[in-house]
Amino acid sequence: MIAFNLLTLTIDNPTMIASLKSILTLITLFFISACSAENSTDSTWRELSLKNTVLLTLPHGKVVIELAPQFSPKHVAQFSQLTQQGFYDQTSFYRVIDGFVAQAGPKDGSKKDRSVPLLAIEGEWQTDKNWKQTSVQKKDLFAEQTGFKDSFALGYQASKDDSSGKAWLTHCPGTVAMARNNEADSASSHFYVVIGQAPRYLDRIMTIFGRVVYGMQHIQAIQRTEAVQGDYAVDHRDFTKIVSMQLMSDVSKDEQIHIEVENTESTKFAERLVKRRARDNDFFYKKPPPVLDVCQIPIRSRRIK
Amino acid sequence: MIAFNLLTLTIDNPTMIASLKSILTLITLFFISACSAENSTDSTWRELSLKNTVLLTLPHGKVVIELAPQFSPKHVAQFSQLTQQGFYDQTSFYRVIDGFVAQAGPKDGSKKDRSVPLLAIEGEWQTDKNWKQTSVQKKDLFAEQTGFKDSFALGYQASKDDSSGKAWLTHCPGTVAMARNNEADSASSHFYVVIGQAPRYLDRIMTIFGRVVYGMQHIQAIQRTEAVQGDYAVDHRDFTKIVSMQLMSDVSKDEQIHIEVENTESTKFAERLVKRRARDNDFFYKKPPPVLDVCQIPIRSRRIK
Repeated sequence: MIAFNLLTLTIDNPTMIASLKSILTLITLFFISACSAENSTDSTWRELSLKNTVLLTLPHGKVVIELAPQFSPKHVAQFSQLTQQGFYDQTSFYRVIDGFVAQAGPKDGSKKDRSVPLLAIEGEWQTDKNWKQTSVQKKDLFAEQTGFKDSFALGYQASKDDSSGKAWLTHCPGTVAMARNNEADSASSHFYVVIGQAPRYLDRIMTIFGRVVYGMQHIQAIQRTEAVQGDYAVDHRDFTKIVSMQLMSDVSKDEQIHIEVENTESTKFAERLVKRRARDNDFFYKKPPPVLDVCQIPIRSRRIK
Repeated sequence: MIAFNLLTLTIDNPTMIASLKSILTLITLFFISACSAENSTDSTWRELSLKNTVLLTLPHGKVVIELAPQFSPKHVAQFSQLTQQGFYDQTSFYRVIDGFVAQAGPKDGSKKDRSVPLLAIEGEWQTDKNWKQTSVQKKDLFAEQTGFKDSFALGYQASKDDSSGKAWLTHCPGTVAMARNNEADSASSHFYVVIGQAPRYLDRIMTIFGRVVYGMQHIQAIQRTEAVQGDYAVDHRDFTKIVSMQLMSDVSKDEQIHIEVENTESTKFAERLVKRRARDNDFFYKKPPPVLDVCQIPIRSRRIK
């Protein structure tokens, strides 16, 4: 009993069998590649800039976050500045709910907490007819369409003219976003990482400004702070602390982690989406619906240094 | 800066404001309650039978799994029998991919592995016009409809006559299912727990036979076995072992964990779904689409002993 197939498939390394279906898929791939060539580059991987990358050191492991200044410039600027000031060092993940989010920040209402300016929300942006993205799914449950841009998952509604389109980053596992109060423009420094099934109902009304690209298993191992009813409450002294948060460019050279991520604008990635949708492999003795959940497509990372 | 709202909401304990919208919601709830009374019971909680409950002891914590003999009788019977024989004790989680599944079982091809009979798949079942469920979402991305039955998430297509309907359990975080080879009827003892975004493309073609109802954070902390490219490979001696797997009814009385779960057939639960869809709270200054992902609705557990 090998029972490997389930997993082999998910890392997208299936043994392809030269069946009629496979040939059809290859023909489709050819056309897709030809059609998307205009939007794509030849590079399958993209190296992350050290200035756009954060090293989050937890007591049990190292995590790397890619920031998204192209989508949420003000949030990234403030988060980067706070990070450089050592603002997050020794703060706790104080609200961690299994299957939902791990949230961290300074003590509520403390001087440190109140010292940070409030940010105007950057939950979505306007698009025009020329806006480009790598399309994933039409008629997604939560969006007119979904796709990727710069390796970030997004939802969007098409532009019918020069300014009627909207696009927004989506909440997926590993998404990093700012917490806020009831008011739209009330985020400052508290942030959360999604650790469970995508809470897509938060799309557009929160500011997503990054995503975990390395060490997600360490985020998943953060101490939950909410006990099941009937269990002992979790002692706040057991909460997971942030040892340090640094811009990767500020980390000493021998401690830096250099990451490349899959280029979602590449031809290879477009091909991978086609294959993933088709599930053209003997393991699928009955085919699933030919749809893709944008949050269920792993964007691969690799460590180059 | 409190920044608590995001989380308060998700545990469904929002401060309701008596706005016009809230009143409308309450009226809707009244009708929903009245209409669903026939299908529902008054009990908000349901105690799990000790014979239908498994205690999975990991080196770092205890996990409780609810079995689903009503949906997958043959898989539950074999899994229970193997569990009683101590079959899984000291086996490893040998394929653990962050964001996907944690899979365990005996050494591939070993005498122990080959000793277990193969099982006919129990991936879906036929329904008739009288089949009842708690409806969640029409036009889900992967199913005609989704819902719950006995606290298990499911997909289904409606019966137009006495036998044309189909229903199946869905892959959500915490779902427990049997791995298999390419052939539909090739599962035996290897099982996996979903630890990431719901891999719904596996619905209907795998046999789901249980779900984690307690200690999911310990499943999330299982050692990943697949290293990121460029990192050192994970040593198999570091793989997480199963200390023991027991039917709860076989556990000594003072070590038993008694769990109650939310009764998804209750009126209270129907009300919770209405509230969750409406997001009728000031935090949602702009409303998300009124849809629900069946895998993003936490079914609460509580410990009673």
